[in-house]
Amino acid sequence: MARPIRVAELELTDHARPVTTTVDAVDETGRTVPTPIAGEHPLTLYLDRRELVTLMTLGAAPEHLALGWLRNQRLVGSVDELAAVQVDWDTGSVAITSRELRDHGTALWARGDREASLDAKLGRRTVTTGCGQGTVFGDLMDSLDDIRLPGDVRVSEASVYAVMDQVRRHESIYKVAGAVHGCALCTNPRDGGPPSILRFVEDVGRHNAVDAIAGWMWVEGVDGTDTIFYTTGRLTSEMVIKCAQMGIPVLLSRSGLTGMGHEIATRIGITMIGRCQGRHYLLFTGAERFVRTPAPR
Amino acid sequence: MARPIRVAELELTDHARPVTTTVDAVDETGRTVPTPIAGEHPLTLYLDRRELVTLMTLGAAPEHLALGWLRNQRLVGSVDELAAVQVDWDTGSVAITSRELRDHGTALWARGDREASLDAKLGRRTVTTGCGQGTVFGDLMDSLDDIRLPGDVRVSEASVYAVMDQVRRHESIYKVAGAVHGCALCTNPRDGGPPSILRFVEDVGRHNAVDAIAGWMWVEGVDGTDTIFYTTGRLTSEMVIKCAQMGIPVLLSRSGLTGMGHEIATRIGITMIGRCQGRHYLLFTGAERFVRTPAPR
Repeated sequence: MARPIRVAELELTDHARPVTTTVDAVDETGRTVPTPIAGEHPLTLYLDRRELVTLMTLGAAPEHLALGWLRNQRLVGSVDELAAVQVDWDTGSVAITSRELRDHGTALWARGDREASLDAKLGRRTVTTGCGQGTVFGDLMDSLDDIRLPGDVRVSEASVYAVMDQVRRHESIYKVAGAVHGCALCTNPRDGGPPSILRFVEDVGRHNAVDAIAGWMWVEGVDGTDTIFYTTGRLTSEMVIKCAQMGIPVLLSRSGLTGMGHEIATRIGITMIGRCQGRHYLLFTGAERFVRTPAPR
Repeated sequence: MARPIRVAELELTDHARPVTTTVDAVDETGRTVPTPIAGEHPLTLYLDRRELVTLMTLGAAPEHLALGWLRNQRLVGSVDELAAVQVDWDTGSVAITSRELRDHGTALWARGDREASLDAKLGRRTVTTGCGQGTVFGDLMDSLDDIRLPGDVRVSEASVYAVMDQVRRHESIYKVAGAVHGCALCTNPRDGGPPSILRFVEDVGRHNAVDAIAGWMWVEGVDGTDTIFYTTGRLTSEMVIKCAQMGIPVLLSRSGLTGMGHEIATRIGITMIGRCQGRHYLLFTGAERFVRTPAPR
């Protein structure tokens, strides 16, 4: 199971927004159909009072989204550096405060080495194939060679099917309103027992959903070793890199993948399984972790 | 039909990449399945030698993508300002050269007013819900009040169905490899005749596809008045704004929409029809342009 390392001392608001609204539409029979639609709201991130970026989000997990964004952009190295995450929808903003600022009155930006490093990262933009959160500051590939995924983890076909079943049965905004992507972080028990969903997040952007899971893992002190990551979205380079950065060795998707997603998964040795639908799947990379269970005749 | 205004005097390379590669995957029966997957390649845009952004793209229409990106970010006001667009995949770059630089040796950036304006736009990042190209520089909403969409255009239910049929029959990377979004620009004849596809673009990012269509419209001098835009992707705020900026009054999608997409479409009066599948659709906004044809009994 996923091992809780520690719970961060961090002050968080809990300002999730209502996720859907209902509008009238007219269908092909001329009938007016009240139709639930997913929310989409700008949320501007400030780190120690400096504006970083505006994300368009469903707003279901804004505090975790802000944290996960900082984590996956590698702008902040540890959640222990942070003191507070405060979401205010009146201004559409989230203020992230470092312990440095809280305890010593010095913004992270004001430290010479730090400022140079943060500015350098902010200066390099790559607009990736992600939905919703495409910008990766810094070199997308920089971190790849530092990543070591666990070699002794196994994932069985039965676990893959179990994850798919659980996600299908999970209550979701997608079923109600569509227009969102979902991600689930699931346990992958070493004893071969069935996986279960640790955290399920949906957002109008697929990369917001993965970032919100990364933020939750930070806050809860969950590492990725004995977990499986499921996404409804495509396995692009950015999705693979983010999962690897979280230390997650197994990546499932209902969708397909891109050439660069495949290349990076091969290079870092992630077990990547795509086109998971019904009782079908395609194992693309990392076959050494996969235990196939022949179907009963 | 769409009216050609003029063909731009613009030097373009024609460096589309092969769009799919084939990798081996293992399916649930243990069989090795050669599987086509969509390409994903970084392409760094330079305007008059200054680096702007790196997009991750399929690479099917890189010159039009670069142009459409400049257009939709409103960094360049007219295609007439540009002299050349040169894609070089060896370096993963596209060099866009202005006429100013070609004819007078002065980069667009070097003009005082221009530099301030371009720098200001580059400085404001909004990471939107778009797949693939989420960054909109400048205020996302700035341009909304300047947009005037034609009020005398009509779109019939028959035309909606005809667009859906044509897109379904169109050869596509999606059918082969998945993991891409498609956009089609179609005619919307004033005489009520059937629409036809003017341009069909797919990309790993949905916003790359819409940008590549915007670039193509610039080069070919096609304005949006008598056209219909179809997308496989969701109708988020950014998608609605981009179509409106191109002057396209009718927007169809196979998918759903977000709250902000709905709000903006209402405000600028675009006719937006979502969930187009089979013989179903939902008309969300701009009903005054829509002519419903009762189904024959």
